[in-house]
Amino acid sequence: MSSATPYSRQEIGKTLGVLETPCLVLEKSRVTENVARLRRHLQPFGVKLRPHLKSAKSIDVARLAMAGRQGPITVSTLREAEYFFSHGVSDILYAVGIAPNKLDHVFDLRRRGANLAILLDNEETAQLVAARCAERRDALPVLIEVDTDGHRSGIKPPDHTLLEIGRTLHAGGALLRGVMTHAGSSYGLHDPASFAAMAEQERSGIVAAAAALRAAGLPCPEVSVGSTPTAHFARNLAGVTEVRAGVFMFFDLVMAGIGVCAIEDIAVSVLATVIGHQHDKGWIIVDAGWMAMSRDRGTARLAVDQGYGMVCDGAGDPIADLIMIDANQEHGILAVRPGAQRALPNLPIGAMVRIFPNHACATGAQHDRYYVVDRDRTVSAIWPRIHGW
Amino acid sequence: MSSATPYSRQEIGKTLGVLETPCLVLEKSRVTENVARLRRHLQPFGVKLRPHLKSAKSIDVARLAMAGRQGPITVSTLREAEYFFSHGVSDILYAVGIAPNKLDHVFDLRRRGANLAILLDNEETAQLVAARCAERRDALPVLIEVDTDGHRSGIKPPDHTLLEIGRTLHAGGALLRGVMTHAGSSYGLHDPASFAAMAEQERSGIVAAAAALRAAGLPCPEVSVGSTPTAHFARNLAGVTEVRAGVFMFFDLVMAGIGVCAIEDIAVSVLATVIGHQHDKGWIIVDAGWMAMSRDRGTARLAVDQGYGMVCDGAGDPIADLIMIDANQEHGILAVRPGAQRALPNLPIGAMVRIFPNHACATGAQHDRYYVVDRDRTVSAIWPRIHGW
Repeated sequence: MSSATPYSRQEIGKTLGVLETPCLVLEKSRVTENVARLRRHLQPFGVKLRPHLKSAKSIDVARLAMAGRQGPITVSTLREAEYFFSHGVSDILYAVGIAPNKLDHVFDLRRRGANLAILLDNEETAQLVAARCAERRDALPVLIEVDTDGHRSGIKPPDHTLLEIGRTLHAGGALLRGVMTHAGSSYGLHDPASFAAMAEQERSGIVAAAAALRAAGLPCPEVSVGSTPTAHFARNLAGVTEVRAGVFMFFDLVMAGIGVCAIEDIAVSVLATVIGHQHDKGWIIVDAGWMAMSRDRGTARLAVDQGYGMVCDGAGDPIADLIMIDANQEHGILAVRPGAQRALPNLPIGAMVRIFPNHACATGAQHDRYYVVDRDRTVSAIWPRIHGW
Repeated sequence: MSSATPYSRQEIGKTLGVLETPCLVLEKSRVTENVARLRRHLQPFGVKLRPHLKSAKSIDVARLAMAGRQGPITVSTLREAEYFFSHGVSDILYAVGIAPNKLDHVFDLRRRGANLAILLDNEETAQLVAARCAERRDALPVLIEVDTDGHRSGIKPPDHTLLEIGRTLHAGGALLRGVMTHAGSSYGLHDPASFAAMAEQERSGIVAAAAALRAAGLPCPEVSVGSTPTAHFARNLAGVTEVRAGVFMFFDLVMAGIGVCAIEDIAVSVLATVIGHQHDKGWIIVDAGWMAMSRDRGTARLAVDQGYGMVCDGAGDPIADLIMIDANQEHGILAVRPGAQRALPNLPIGAMVRIFPNHACATGAQHDRYYVVDRDRTVSAIWPRIHGW
């Protein structure tokens, strides 16, 4: 990261006002509170939390979210697995169906000591994995992905291929660790009762899959569920052993828009500077565009469209009805929300704003470090984050 | 980049089939052809090309596009300026209106030898810059940004503030280098006649601004225009001294969709692997999602919506009507284009596809290197690219 941060060290202990913009600001106390909230909710159910670090991509953030120094964690890329393993995290689930071209890398990470588990949802891959496990003499732990909401990957619970895959893995050289599901369609819901109902659909579907494997004499020690909305609103987790969630540590405008968190819980924002005005159009131009915010327009489908982000003052408090209505690569156009009867606030050249993102995972990915602050706006640390594959 | 590329060197000389996916593939011969095309078009006008490296962010790509080892180039961030300067490029225009918090960095780059010029469009910034130039005893070259199409920043040509800014800079310690404009609204047009008309609007607007400065006794040696569509379709560049363009070196589905290039000109694609099927839904699941493609949906507003990308076979030839219809962070869902009467192609687990992006600048930003190939699919080089600010 050295070439990425030539101006970094001298910024620690200074206020946000000294930073070159755009940059990503992390309110550490909010992450701590968000993690504590989910742990409090899950505690009565006796399940473990396996935080998904696809949103954070930072060992420093991971340490706020993990139960212990070695995990458990979930990752979305082998690059994340490499990175977290290099920082002492060993209990890792790579939660994207394995591609054949990644198996050598998986075995290599395990040979070096990572307790890395993988995912698959089809018989072709199960046969390949079982054969490769036998060849490598490595009982690679495998979870079978189950589809409980129809939104993406996985086997439907009553599908006979579940048992075929289970038998292929178990009879071959792999370790059948269990089943997993992700009710990603919960992002499309927007009230506590619907989240709870989806959580129950997710739970009952995966528990049925686990029961089918066990009824066929196959092992199924792990029963893994999770998405940020269902994790927070589940009322019953009987039969579940672990819960995964990722964006919960940061939250964002989509999660606030569907009612999973409050705006005040959002822990990440993009710091930007006013560089111009188009007074006749009611526009304020800032130096953060879609490269800094990402192209994610997740709130476009919600009741309140936040454009490319909700604009806050330098303290992180929202400026009423000011949003980023459009974005070019390195320019953001701020304006009063369409329909709001309100004057444009006075933000002169050089004024700094903080912009809450639609989607923390997408916005975070555009940045190579977090500027960590608490409510006093002093930079207490600079945390690198990884990028790419 | 060392931590980013643990598996890289051994891949040179191998076919794309050995790569871990997703990754970004660059067809070098297409870049060379795309650059040659624009240079051929501009040659009769006697203007210089100042390629915009916001799309490439790679010195190796830059060397295919630059007239000489030292530039001239355009950049969108000071990080790009730092990076290209560290590789010997010195003639650099930072083409985003300057923020006060970046001036120290600009002066520092110039002190180290970069011939870096900046942009502004308002009197407040002009006063600040003039004062700082006097303080630093550095005649920083400044271009005044002019708005010729109303899409973003800049002063309207007849605006009296143009002359005020010119006088403030010239009387202060800055070097008034000239005027610049970017007809970004050309991306919203879709036929040669409209591009040509917009190019003439861009030219006549900026030439009028230059004339106004000169009539007031102010210097205006540089008259800079550019956007990929107007650069390619301009029929008259009288009074213009330089043209800027960025995405032209790669092209993408938006540029093809509006008719600036052919699909066969697109030089970048994302290599992905089939990891699953949802046969009942007609879905093929690959290991490249929006993290690899970006969230850019630029073709959504065009006559042909390409989803998150157009799917090609491993040789880079389009598979008829197969697009990425939806994307999660690390999952892409491929399906036959809505409305097309066509069976899903047979792409088994492990099959590799290449996906043309909607927007090369956004997709490129998601990757930390290019895997460079020519039509034989052999990796001839791995070129790092930069990220962040």
